[in-house]
Amino acid sequence: MSQLTQTPISRYPVPELEALPDDIRARIVAVQEKSGFIPNVFLVLARRPDEFRAFFSYHDALMEKPGNLTKAEREMIVVATSSANQCHYCVIAHGAILRIRAKNPLIADQVAVNYRKADITDRQKAMLDFAMKVSTGAYDLGESDLAALKAHGFNDEDAWDIAAIAAFFAMSNRMANVTSMRPNTEFYGMGR
Amino acid sequence: MSQLTQTPISRYPVPELEALPDDIRARIVAVQEKSGFIPNVFLVLARRPDEFRAFFSYHDALMEKPGNLTKAEREMIVVATSSANQCHYCVIAHGAILRIRAKNPLIADQVAVNYRKADITDRQKAMLDFAMKVSTGAYDLGESDLAALKAHGFNDEDAWDIAAIAAFFAMSNRMANVTSMRPNTEFYGMGR
Amino acid sequence: MSQLTQTPISRYPVPELEALPDDIRARIVAVQEKSGFIPNVFLVLARRPDEFRAFFSYHDALMEKPGNLTKAEREMIVVATSSANQCHYCVIAHGAILRIRAKNPLIADQVAVNYRKADITDRQKAMLDFAMKVSTGAYDLGESDLAALKAHGFNDEDAWDIAAIAAFFAMSNRMANVTSMRPNTEFYGMGR
Amino acid sequence: MSQLTQTPISRYPVPELEALPDDIRARIVAVQEKSGFIPNVFLVLARRPDEFRAFFSYHDALMEKPGNLTKAEREMIVVATSSANQCHYCVIAHGAILRIRAKNPLIADQVAVNYRKADITDRQKAMLDFAMKVSTGAYDLGESDLAALKAHGFNDEDAWDIAAIAAFFAMSNRMANVTSMRPNTEFYGMGR
Amino acid sequence: MSQLTQTPISRYPVPELEALPDDIRARIVAVQEKSGFIPNVFLVLARRPDEFRAFFSYHDALMEKPGNLTKAEREMIVVATSSANQCHYCVIAHGAILRIRAKNPLIADQVAVNYRKADITDRQKAMLDFAMKVSTGAYDLGESDLAALKAHGFNDEDAWDIAAIAAFFAMSNRMANVTSMRPNTEFYGMGR
Amino acid sequence: MSQLTQTPISRYPVPELEALPDDIRARIVAVQEKSGFIPNVFLVLARRPDEFRAFFSYHDALMEKPGNLTKAEREMIVVATSSANQCHYCVIAHGAILRIRAKNPLIADQVAVNYRKADITDRQKAMLDFAMKVSTGAYDLGESDLAALKAHGFNDEDAWDIAAIAAFFAMSNRMANVTSMRPNTEFYGMGR
Repeated sequence: MSQLTQTPISRYPVPELEALPDDIRARIVAVQEKSGFIPNVFLVLARRPDEFRAFFSYHDALMEKPGNLTKAEREMIVVATSSANQCHYCVIAHGAILRIRAKNPLIADQVAVNYRKADITDRQKAMLDFAMKVSTGAYDLGESDLAALKAHGFNDEDAWDIAAIAAFFAMSNRMANVTSMRPNTEFYGMGR
Repeated sequence: MSQLTQTPISRYPVPELEALPDDIRARIVAVQEKSGFIPNVFLVLARRPDEFRAFFSYHDALMEKPGNLTKAEREMIVVATSSANQCHYCVIAHGAILRIRAKNPLIADQVAVNYRKADITDRQKAMLDFAMKVSTGAYDLGESDLAALKAHGFNDEDAWDIAAIAAFFAMSNRMANVTSMRPNTEFYGMGR
Repeated sequence: MSQLTQTPISRYPVPELEALPDDIRARIVAVQEKSGFIPNVFLVLARRPDEFRAFFSYHDALMEKPGNLTKAEREMIVVATSSANQCHYCVIAHGAILRIRAKNPLIADQVAVNYRKADITDRQKAMLDFAMKVSTGAYDLGESDLAALKAHGFNDEDAWDIAAIAAFFAMSNRMANVTSMRPNTEFYGMGR
Repeated sequence: MSQLTQTPISRYPVPELEALPDDIRARIVAVQEKSGFIPNVFLVLARRPDEFRAFFSYHDALMEKPGNLTKAEREMIVVATSSANQCHYCVIAHGAILRIRAKNPLIADQVAVNYRKADITDRQKAMLDFAMKVSTGAYDLGESDLAALKAHGFNDEDAWDIAAIAAFFAMSNRMANVTSMRPNTEFYGMGR
Repeated sequence: MSQLTQTPISRYPVPELEALPDDIRARIVAVQEKSGFIPNVFLVLARRPDEFRAFFSYHDALMEKPGNLTKAEREMIVVATSSANQCHYCVIAHGAILRIRAKNPLIADQVAVNYRKADITDRQKAMLDFAMKVSTGAYDLGESDLAALKAHGFNDEDAWDIAAIAAFFAMSNRMANVTSMRPNTEFYGMGR
Repeated sequence: MSQLTQTPISRYPVPELEALPDDIRARIVAVQEKSGFIPNVFLVLARRPDEFRAFFSYHDALMEKPGNLTKAEREMIVVATSSANQCHYCVIAHGAILRIRAKNPLIADQVAVNYRKADITDRQKAMLDFAMKVSTGAYDLGESDLAALKAHGFNDEDAWDIAAIAAFFAMSNRMANVTSMRPNTEFYGMGR
């Protein structure tokens, strides 16, 4: 694991793969085989197996489920809200995934800096307006916010999906910042 | 379920217990038997079984695990951060649990309004300072914040626990606000 | 005065009843006879007789006067704005009064956490929107805010009443926080 | 009352002097004789006699009482906090009084724009730091804030005085903004 | 240069006029002849000749150019945004210029404290709303903000002018605050 | 100019190179020959020749001058503050320059997302803390901020340099956001 040799990937100790419970190691090995490397979030969270399992179950339930939001759109939500939360790991890692999902080398940087100026549709900007309000002011979210979504063709299930992704990364961003989770070098150039 | 008859407990449709997958219904029935009623969060989230399972696995991994934080202290974190997020469900429901765990009828209201003035120890105030920074400014959390925790005897695992609870409820508060999740009437008076 | 025996009710010394000017002692005794206990705000402020007299004259001029706002609605304004200001004394004490005035054991906690989700009328939410803007951004309050009030049937005198109550508690909340004014234990359970 | 002929001095109707209760008219006439004009705050608030009486009793109890703060220092608190609250009436009217009390034609503008850069003592800057925290974040005011005051020779009674003035004008600023209270033209040039 | 004898006009050393490059000294002498004194901004910035030349070229390109905005209106933008940035030098110096340009002794204080309450036209308030959004939230400025300007008769070139002035003083305010640039005493009374 | 054919690079019309004054066209051609393309900021600002000249004179006076800050460090200041201001053009274009100056393909994304977690020295983080305070709260910048810089070996001239770059881009970011200035596609991949 060369990425561990110089700068630590977490403020916390990172377990050895061999020391992990079988199911967690299997999941990590599968990701490694698919991606060619192990995204650090798997290694950083693996030291708490129960939390690891819940975290990735939740992640997959939101990001891999069927639904009207494309996978690229889900990643836009992650990148926009993670940037507002200044989450190093999530912006870099999910920025890479967004570039790949959208087959667009420019989009992740655009969404991260200011989604209002990004080359995305008005419908996608409305989706991100809603996601950002969930992220920064959910206590004041009301009917007018839902109406703005619906004016762009989103339905109630889409609203739940957008909100749940923004909410999940509200959690994830905080854990990444607390642990000083470091993105893998591989992510920076992927999909460019 | 009399609490459903007048004001809806969610902006979203709530499934019938009989229509739920066995494992989810079993979990809900177990809670009902223990508490005497079904906390609405179970019914509101049950319409998305995979998310439900991940949510409660995560919740239990943080709130039921062994560790140096007492159960009352964990609930203090929930109440203080949920109040900052203006989360109706979480402040009312976890306020009840906090009163019971702490065997103190006053503590939940004190922590919800302004934990700096609550009848808790300086160590607990330091714990809540850290939790609140995770909740509202994790991007700026650094060594001085961890040092302040350690000055009160918390170790690195305690810091993770505090952060993870604050982060989990950052998510939970947002979902409760988006769904307009309604706390059960039973919670208001419990433990007073 | 058993409530003084353990935790101080103020950062400042609290005078003995017998040492107070006659008019102030008479007022306090009258409250005690009506309520069964002396709300701490009377004892904490009594050490400055002129300020005490002005404070309670102002309070009564706003909270006891005739007008279109019900007494419960006036207390809603106090609870919502005092919660935004994280005022321990005011949320607990006026929360109790709100429950009693509204004959509703749930309403104070709802208004304190997030009035937008409380079981109150749309008209009352408009009243609280206006009160909250007076409390947090009066410099930007303009015709559109007054128009929103009037759309719910409030007139100019009602607007003054709402504003004056929010403004008075902007003062009161700050004094309570500076003095670390402690609410009486009796308030927590009243009206539940 | 020439100042009423063109631009109204309040969003609300202003009573005729003759129509006012005797005590209020007497107070206003006394001010007029002393100042040469009637400061608009007297006319704007007079329509609500009970509130008028309480307001000015409170004002005098704080601004006219003996104490360690000079009258100029009390006006500095008013000007600094009223500027933060963007209160037109209070900055202009009390700016005039500050210039006169301090016998310094520059000081009011300096304190209004940025008291940290004003030609005042470090002790006065500490006084204004405390007053500004009362005005903008009293919920977080604690022992370290009081210690900073005491390091400059202020005692507990001085702390109360500073806080009470900041709190009173937190109220006053809000009422002036809601009523669109207009400062008299005379104030702009006084003491320059 | 009597204004230098007591309180320094900058945190940084101020060059002697004779030591300055000819073009800079000539510009300063010309200003002195016109105004009767040397505004301190010239002396404070002169120690960095290249930056001085660029700063005043930019200033003149915005403030002296032809265009639909009157010179008084340009100064309103400076005063309103500089007050939001708490810039001592810019509010005092440009407040003086605004009074002179507008031939109105009251306007600068009104615009500095709360432009929403100033004796200016609704069109000018719309201009300042736009300028303030450039100053405090340009990232979110969009078509609706431009539409609000155009509803008051401003065109696209006017929008650029307003924005460029607000942006230039965003820079200038920061430099004045960092250098603790002191306004000349002469400015306080000019135009009153 | 292929970059103009699809999405406009500015909300405002962009002049033809041939129509520009000779000195401006010469500067643009020189940049084009050096970089291989014309950075859009030159085309967007060229429609206002006087402002163009002042803008780039100022830019060069800060970014090209000798001094203790390396060119990479100056670009770090641009990227960190422009990201806080959500400036699409500046983060993308100066991110490219930062990668090249620092010969580090990762650094720009790290500094843009959260400089506190970037692979830079503690001295550089102190530099960016100061720059960020200039950008977001210059009114409150004081001796303790300068002392923090000096503890890392920066002197007063370095402080001016840092502040002036942050201040210049406070202006530049606002103009880029108002004009919806679009970064050239070439910047995204440069130096990776």
